[in-house]
Amino acid sequence: MVKEELTKEAFKITAHMVSSLDGIIAKKDNSASWFDTPDKYEKGIAAQDPVEFLKTIDCYVMGARTYEHAIELSKSYGWAYGDKPTIVVSHKNIKPERKNIEVYSGDLHKLVDEKLKPNYKNVWLVGGAELIQEFIRLKLADEIRLMVIPIILGDGTYFLNGIGQEKLLHLLDVVAYKNGMVELRYEIKK
Amino acid sequence: MVKEELTKEAFKITAHMVSSLDGIIAKKDNSASWFDTPDKYEKGIAAQDPVEFLKTIDCYVMGARTYEHAIELSKSYGWAYGDKPTIVVSHKNIKPERKNIEVYSGDLHKLVDEKLKPNYKNVWLVGGAELIQEFIRLKLADEIRLMVIPIILGDGTYFLNGIGQEKLLHLLDVVAYKNGMVELRYEIKK
Repeated sequence: MVKEELTKEAFKITAHMVSSLDGIIAKKDNSASWFDTPDKYEKGIAAQDPVEFLKTIDCYVMGARTYEHAIELSKSYGWAYGDKPTIVVSHKNIKPERKNIEVYSGDLHKLVDEKLKPNYKNVWLVGGAELIQEFIRLKLADEIRLMVIPIILGDGTYFLNGIGQEKLLHLLDVVAYKNGMVELRYEIKK
Repeated sequence: MVKEELTKEAFKITAHMVSSLDGIIAKKDNSASWFDTPDKYEKGIAAQDPVEFLKTIDCYVMGARTYEHAIELSKSYGWAYGDKPTIVVSHKNIKPERKNIEVYSGDLHKLVDEKLKPNYKNVWLVGGAELIQEFIRLKLADEIRLMVIPIILGDGTYFLNGIGQEKLLHLLDVVAYKNGMVELRYEIKK
């Protein structure tokens, strides 16, 4: 019992998303310029140093479309996930374009128990919406971090629409940034 | 020009909603117990005194279903909107059950210019989702106040789904409460 609790505390899967106020994480044309809204919020704090922050993440997990989109973006902006181990969950025949990327096509419980838990502590699930919803439904996600951009998009892919289950949350933290973004951090009650 | 700016500053329509993290404002069975989640957020502030706060509101505007639901709830909990003037926007033949309630069935620009602006300063638009979306589309809403409850509902009526227009927002304030609710306040850029 004590051991289980310790293990649980040490290992954590965080679902991380950036959305508009109306809960949209991707526009239909996949353009990402809405991430840079021109807002200013005087009371906010400056953005944290991404280098320091990213050090805390041990492994990324993402769906096939998120991966393909990240590869596309990497041609202009570089690969966003550094040299960290990255697992692409997909039944598609994806050929990883980088050494640190692995494709996984099996059961998600197995992924967590056999691949993630023994090797990492701080796992980030970075999309897409369907994969995140599946992790939440299967009680495999421990936290949600939602970065809300000060914009209404009106149309696109919704973060949590149609998850079809009720989940109690526990608010862990709220941070407002100088650029008008608000980060909401919740524990997902199981 | 100066006069117009002064008028604009003096008059304000605030779209006020309470939603789950997945942007749902009403469950399919219309039950409201999810408003009282058992969460505790130590860093949050205590809820403000509602009596003091409600004094700042001059007039409520709502759609027919929101009105009917409020009437239904009033049988158990009393009428939530006090003696403040309340305008129900509807083409239905509604017989107001209280003196301070008026039914309006015309054009929304006219409602604002002829009924609201000359008489009030701080107007609260309290739902439903369709009416709020129409006010936002017509550029008649000045602010959004969204109270986020620490829960995922998974199914129901979404606050802003399908508004179909992009709107830049300006973050005005973020307040986290001891019960885990987070209030996000935005100006809607026009």
